[in-house]
Amino acid sequence: MGAVLVQRDGPATRLVIDRPERDNSLTAADVRELADRLETAAADPATRVVVLAGAGGTLCTGMDLAEVAGGADAGGGSGFFDLLRRITEIDVTVVAALDGRAVGGGVGLAAACDLVVATERSAFSLPEALWGLLPCNILPFLIRRTGFQRAYAMTLSTATMTAAEARTAGLVDELDTAQGRHLRRLVGRLAKVDRATVGEAKAYCATLSPIGADTREHASATFARLLRTPAVHTRIDNYVRHQRMPWEQ
Amino acid sequence: MGAVLVQRDGPATRLVIDRPERDNSLTAADVRELADRLETAAADPATRVVVLAGAGGTLCTGMDLAEVAGGADAGGGSGFFDLLRRITEIDVTVVAALDGRAVGGGVGLAAACDLVVATERSAFSLPEALWGLLPCNILPFLIRRTGFQRAYAMTLSTATMTAAEARTAGLVDELDTAQGRHLRRLVGRLAKVDRATVGEAKAYCATLSPIGADTREHASATFARLLRTPAVHTRIDNYVRHQRMPWEQ
Amino acid sequence: MGAVLVQRDGPATRLVIDRPERDNSLTAADVRELADRLETAAADPATRVVVLAGAGGTLCTGMDLAEVAGGADAGGGSGFFDLLRRITEIDVTVVAALDGRAVGGGVGLAAACDLVVATERSAFSLPEALWGLLPCNILPFLIRRTGFQRAYAMTLSTATMTAAEARTAGLVDELDTAQGRHLRRLVGRLAKVDRATVGEAKAYCATLSPIGADTREHASATFARLLRTPAVHTRIDNYVRHQRMPWEQ
Repeated sequence: MGAVLVQRDGPATRLVIDRPERDNSLTAADVRELADRLETAAADPATRVVVLAGAGGTLCTGMDLAEVAGGADAGGGSGFFDLLRRITEIDVTVVAALDGRAVGGGVGLAAACDLVVATERSAFSLPEALWGLLPCNILPFLIRRTGFQRAYAMTLSTATMTAAEARTAGLVDELDTAQGRHLRRLVGRLAKVDRATVGEAKAYCATLSPIGADTREHASATFARLLRTPAVHTRIDNYVRHQRMPWEQ
Repeated sequence: MGAVLVQRDGPATRLVIDRPERDNSLTAADVRELADRLETAAADPATRVVVLAGAGGTLCTGMDLAEVAGGADAGGGSGFFDLLRRITEIDVTVVAALDGRAVGGGVGLAAACDLVVATERSAFSLPEALWGLLPCNILPFLIRRTGFQRAYAMTLSTATMTAAEARTAGLVDELDTAQGRHLRRLVGRLAKVDRATVGEAKAYCATLSPIGADTREHASATFARLLRTPAVHTRIDNYVRHQRMPWEQ
Repeated sequence: MGAVLVQRDGPATRLVIDRPERDNSLTAADVRELADRLETAAADPATRVVVLAGAGGTLCTGMDLAEVAGGADAGGGSGFFDLLRRITEIDVTVVAALDGRAVGGGVGLAAACDLVVATERSAFSLPEALWGLLPCNILPFLIRRTGFQRAYAMTLSTATMTAAEARTAGLVDELDTAQGRHLRRLVGRLAKVDRATVGEAKAYCATLSPIGADTREHASATFARLLRTPAVHTRIDNYVRHQRMPWEQ
């Protein structure tokens, strides 16, 4: 425990991913903790908005590779998919606030949030393909946000998208100043909508663009299969033991 | 009758919503009148394009709340949904022309039109959630235009979108000068396409992104249910009787 | 044979449509040749990326109308649809590179490619409706790229989209300099991803936005039906015999 800080800030509860020594990457336990913190925050009727952020500005850089190398199924299980889906369903508005990077699973967290606010220095990337992996759990949520092509292009090109590009693509809803002025104004506005109405909005909209059980199963199975391939195993091992990136091998 | 002016303008028939004293909001009777005018315009083979506009520049600000407070099912019935779907199906090109606001159902009208031209001072918003309602009938058409996220963000944030933002989001197809120069050029270009081909295009494209009977039923049922909740009833009543907006209560 | 040049360029194989005397339009035989060249390029494991381009910068201006006037089913058969789908499925990254126009089927080729890079002077249009036709085979792939509305608006308005507009719409992934600097950088980056991973990415993403057999049948049947109408026949004939465009008749 302790990977997620909880801060009350007026009508908002801030959940801050706080593993700066590991670039805010998440272990399976961290994912469970984040899911628990979200439920607790939403259970308090005084919480009108949940803000999801990362210590130092970077939201999250995906799964903890050391854990994956050790054989745990951090990214392979469906816990991460379930967290993303829960964010889209829970009856409180969840806003991602970035002032730094979102990488891999971090892009998934942002994509699943109801709204994304990011400063100009924020950046988004999906490097999974360089490891021989794919952002299986992330893509259904990212495609719902950006449409097919932008999500597909990020996957294949593994290129970094600037905050301005992400706004055009629909991955960022609002660009913010370094002082977070737009985020404060947005939280004030969101707090005027009843929690019950937020729940109704999420439930109704989900019927218009559903992410079903098939999608979850296929995502989990594909990711687990790729994770077991020798090429992927070797690359993760080389990184964890020798800090060698896959494109240096 | 008399809420919709009909003006011939070369190859175009202009349908102008003309209830300035009520901000171009629509009663159930107005919706039926608009639907009738559209059929009449399309029945004339000399009409190559229908332009839908609002007197004073504001296209429409949604349903007439006074009527809703009186117990009529203005927005709750499926008449409005059926008008939006008919716009997407009728074998004549329908262009929305804005030089002002589109609010609630007005955004739905714009979204359903084949093309939307708007001046820079135009603006779009979905305030339904502030009343405890949702833009149920509008969302299927808006999502087809802008993709899921932009429509969802407008719904939850209730924030006003500028014409420039609406263009990036795909809700506006072309920005126009105050003189309507682009609209005139566009009408000239659209008039070169056979009416039969327009009908074929609408029918073919509808198969690629269908809005089905289930969607209509679910939209109507959800909207009617929300409209019956006490919180919504109180807010509409306070507005109609005391001009008090929901966020002032 | 001979309509498609094959050029090795480091990790990339360039397929260049080379029928400048006919504006890089394609006969049914050209489509088959292009499909064959794509398979041959992909069969070479040293090919990490296929770049699809057109001699002189114009990618392709669609089907050869002279052949269509002669009764052949150039565009009516499903060979073109099958080529587009194959581009989306083959286990090598395919990049369209434009420094000029893409018209009709040329827009379809670009849309089906994994990534599209275009210089500022590039331009995109779907003039089919002016002939009484529709871009039936193209629309499923274009909608997957740009969302419904942009593809629909291009179809109905027949207006030309600039490269900058196409980038906002998602039809172009990256704007390039006249020297092709971004394309070279992109190819270098794409070459770092395993061929096997590219195949996995295409297969997985296809399940999230499938283009099915029904779509293919409906596209072929609709296009063939429109092609047989007298109005279309007369227009194509007038063009091929007298160089008279449909809007001049």
